Amino acid sequence: MTEGGRTLKLALVGLGKIARDQHLPAIEATPGARLAAIASRHAGLDGLPCYPTIDALLAAEPGIDAVTLCTPPDRRFAQALAALDAGKHLMLEKPPGATLAEVAALGRRAAAAGVTLFATWHSREAAAVGPARRWLAGREIRSARITWKEDVRHWHPGQGWIWEPGGLGVFDPGINALSIATAILPDPLLVARSALHFPSNRATPIAAEVDMVTAAGAPVAMELDWRQTGPQTWDISVETDDGALTLSKGGAVLTIDGAEQLAEPDEEYRRLYARFVELVAAGESDVDMSPLMLVADAFLVGRRHVVEPFFDAPEMAT
Amino acid sequence: MTEGGRTLKLALVGLGKIARDQHLPAIEATPGARLAAIASRHAGLDGLPCYPTIDALLAAEPGIDAVTLCTPPDRRFAQALAALDAGKHLMLEKPPGATLAEVAALGRRAAAAGVTLFATWHSREAAAVGPARRWLAGREIRSARITWKEDVRHWHPGQGWIWEPGGLGVFDPGINALSIATAILPDPLLVARSALHFPSNRATPIAAEVDMVTAAGAPVAMELDWRQTGPQTWDISVETDDGALTLSKGGAVLTIDGAEQLAEPDEEYRRLYARFVELVAAGESDVDMSPLMLVADAFLVGRRHVVEPFFDAPEMAT
Repeated sequence: MTEGGRTLKLALVGLGKIARDQHLPAIEATPGARLAAIASRHAGLDGLPCYPTIDALLAAEPGIDAVTLCTPPDRRFAQALAALDAGKHLMLEKPPGATLAEVAALGRRAAAAGVTLFATWHSREAAAVGPARRWLAGREIRSARITWKEDVRHWHPGQGWIWEPGGLGVFDPGINALSIATAILPDPLLVARSALHFPSNRATPIAAEVDMVTAAGAPVAMELDWRQTGPQTWDISVETDDGALTLSKGGAVLTIDGAEQLAEPDEEYRRLYARFVELVAAGESDVDMSPLMLVADAFLVGRRHVVEPFFDAPEMAT
Repeated sequence: MTEGGRTLKLALVGLGKIARDQHLPAIEATPGARLAAIASRHAGLDGLPCYPTIDALLAAEPGIDAVTLCTPPDRRFAQALAALDAGKHLMLEKPPGATLAEVAALGRRAAAAGVTLFATWHSREAAAVGPARRWLAGREIRSARITWKEDVRHWHPGQGWIWEPGGLGVFDPGINALSIATAILPDPLLVARSALHFPSNRATPIAAEVDMVTAAGAPVAMELDWRQTGPQTWDISVETDDGALTLSKGGAVLTIDGAEQLAEPDEEYRRLYARFVELVAAGESDVDMSPLMLVADAFLVGRRHVVEPFFDAPEMAT
């Protein structure tokens, strides 16, 4: 339940893969929230009012309490301002903006409007992230390694925006790893060096190595690669003064000193919506820029390398 | 005067060009502050204790109240932590760190230690910046243009670190422009697009065009170029609903609707030290990350272009 015991009436903007796979079932399963309208340029949902733009939606549906944006980051800022200026609570898919200054501006605007802004990092809600954070909390970090290797053709078929400036490239999944690492490690992370590998025909990197260090001095090496066929890897391993931990499958599975812990079911997006309902009820915001800040820092200090061109369909490369 | 009416005993770390040209005379001219020790790997000053490292200085001079770091940004973080952990107030040359996460970490550390952190932006203290801000405060910004064109061989002779990852390249002067723009424009700036021109033999850009927009929607175009021989340009011009303003010579000269305003003398660094003494006395910090954030955003969303190689001595290019 939300403010005054009412159910939060939600509008979803953007009806792409992430919205259909994750947001719609999660909203359906969230007590205290109800999907009331959609904005999408191309699609609609049976039984729900649907509008081509967020502006049309906001004009036609004054009873909406909150908006979730699932659109690509490059066009999210204007939509976010429109929602905040209409007095709506706002939930953002990751990354919360195309630039850091955008996110900072949205945070100030939400505070001025007296509404909730929730910049979500869905990977932080993966089943084993909380247990990993609690296990690491009392220990001294010796070193950590982040390995995020996946097949971009499988996970981002035809999503040209990931290759355009601002699309983040391999940091689009890599920011998930950073959102987990910043949540479980007890010290802040700093980028020391990075190597960015740009396909000769693309504006964003297809692979990267980022050497980080905790503020306490422990090395944290991150390897990102979008050219991985066969088995996919989303692992974070941490060596401490009192044992070793591995988070695998993107935070779903926790192994401590070689022993796999009991796995809980995947409820990432259900947890996000439960948290959004809580934040609205409490009149609070949650805007953590640190994962995007580390990505920007990796670009800022990165050494650029040009690698072979990337084509969406592998046969085009021949 | 400072805490308890005492004079602030300062140590200067790094004795390069900026320290000799600006910091030493400014400290000399600051009531309430006195230079008490130096750390420099290569140089010393007659009549002052000099140490090879900040650690040696801190160990030998427990009576030091505050430290100013004039070292290049890539090695500043460890020095800054050493000063803060020793309980010293800390003043940082621009940029305040090699990465945003570093600056954020220093801010948290200073707050925890209960000391003053002052991340300086010397260009904001240029004579005409304050008058420009006051003139713009009541006006609606229609557009702005930042033109920062200088000869890198003249201003950075033999400074190889500016071309290494993290050295910022042409954004090293460009961040001065951004520090002024963020100080005089009433709305926050956001990076929409940027083009970064990297010499084929260097890791940082020699030129850049950054298309920004104010949060209120006015376009702000920035052009940075380090290949400018002949006349040098450091101009910001702003069109408003009520006249036009130009700040030229890096903030030294103000022209309103074509009429040059009375110029004041250049006291950038004297103002910085006066402000540092004030901040320490008030127990406050001043850490504005926005200029560095805009640079990181320009790298994050930038489209990279490779241009002809750069050599320090022009004849080497033939």
